[in-house]
Amino acid sequence: MTKAPLLPVVVIFVLLLLLAATSSGMTAVSEHQQRRCLSWRVAVEANNARAWSSVPPTCVGYVEDYMLRGQYQRDLDTVTYQIFAYLNNTINVAAADGMDAWVLDVDDTILSNLLYYKGKHYGGDPYDPLGFRSWAQRGICSAIPKMLRVYKRLIEKGFKVFLVTGRDEEMFNSSTSRNLDAQGFKGHERLIMRGADYRGVGASVFKSTMRKQLVGKGYRIRGNIGDQWSDLLGDCNGDRIFKVPNPMYFVP
Amino acid sequence: MTKAPLLPVVVIFVLLLLLAATSSGMTAVSEHQQRRCLSWRVAVEANNARAWSSVPPTCVGYVEDYMLRGQYQRDLDTVTYQIFAYLNNTINVAAADGMDAWVLDVDDTILSNLLYYKGKHYGGDPYDPLGFRSWAQRGICSAIPKMLRVYKRLIEKGFKVFLVTGRDEEMFNSSTSRNLDAQGFKGHERLIMRGADYRGVGASVFKSTMRKQLVGKGYRIRGNIGDQWSDLLGDCNGDRIFKVPNPMYFVP
Repeated sequence: MTKAPLLPVVVIFVLLLLLAATSSGMTAVSEHQQRRCLSWRVAVEANNARAWSSVPPTCVGYVEDYMLRGQYQRDLDTVTYQIFAYLNNTINVAAADGMDAWVLDVDDTILSNLLYYKGKHYGGDPYDPLGFRSWAQRGICSAIPKMLRVYKRLIEKGFKVFLVTGRDEEMFNSSTSRNLDAQGFKGHERLIMRGADYRGVGASVFKSTMRKQLVGKGYRIRGNIGDQWSDLLGDCNGDRIFKVPNPMYFVP
Repeated sequence: MTKAPLLPVVVIFVLLLLLAATSSGMTAVSEHQQRRCLSWRVAVEANNARAWSSVPPTCVGYVEDYMLRGQYQRDLDTVTYQIFAYLNNTINVAAADGMDAWVLDVDDTILSNLLYYKGKHYGGDPYDPLGFRSWAQRGICSAIPKMLRVYKRLIEKGFKVFLVTGRDEEMFNSSTSRNLDAQGFKGHERLIMRGADYRGVGASVFKSTMRKQLVGKGYRIRGNIGDQWSDLLGDCNGDRIFKVPNPMYFVP
């Protein structure tokens, strides 16, 4: 038997060790960052982090990952599951008087702006009103498929669905209506947009006022779905609120 | 030069390949589970998941990991940071009339029951009233150090601190007072416990009523900290609420 030269084996081993050390080092760094950004994202969803103007620079990669690599979809699954469980267990079908209502937000609740935010570093860039304006006026947002299922179920069950959005009525009325219709959101009672009287008013105040008017007309708000806490808190906010995930921007 | 025998090199390679395949397979399974459990935990923190009676069996390992391996501490850091930022930027010091107040919950907001829940699979076991009773009566809960810092800062700044807990007054009054004192929670205005009149009433209703009484006496609730949404929602819930993380149990 010939004697095996140690050199090639040793070289392979050293290379493998180096590789292992490097990759675990890299993982350690990015894992540390990931854990910090996860903590920030949870703070956003729990409404502890407020009034932030853009995604922290160190978390831009994390948010991109979150939005594109499965976890955002998983969180949409989870909230959809919660909505259906609530519907099935609690109020199944709307009352015959036609006054059981749901309030749904539009942007990143039922229509997705992900394509737009892709060009804005997933919220890493500051808010760009002109950029968003020309995007929204094109009326090409995709439906969030899981939320379209929720929407259709609500319509089937006989609920009056009110879409309440902070989008300016004059600027976005036709593009938004067209966009919703093209994406399959048909049969809602009304699309309520921000009229001239409410320009410059915070979303929370505007939406509270709109809901109060609905309740004043006798509607019972059975559920309220939004990606921003300003959709969900305030007056007449409904029997149950559902927070749709969104780590890309904050609307006060 | 002697010819190197291929056998040892090939064997090492095959073993390394097998190891890589096995470990990535294991990671894939546990990663999938982790991602599902993370989604559930976020739903808990965002108040989408409600009225759950115990941690889902498939997430018990995840929650143990969360509580013990850094992420829980990181989330406590994050909420503490938010509280201090709010304090520094908004209301820094209490008004001279002595009516600026904060409301803090006790269990798993300022005192930790982690040691107890360790014996209950970190919330994987159903709620055990007798077990919790004998635990709480021992009065040996540790302070959550970050929350003790918050507490001390509030006292320093001149706020009136009200500790409002769903713990039964008759059963836990002396053990709770002793426990708080021993852990450094000194100088609060009052420890408000659940009296006989409120037995069997939901935490949210009980705590709302207590807060309403404080506001009725002229206190301005500047902040409200709790690990349960039932601490934080309802009437007179304060200028700002802070959700402390807790994936181990749900109090309605």
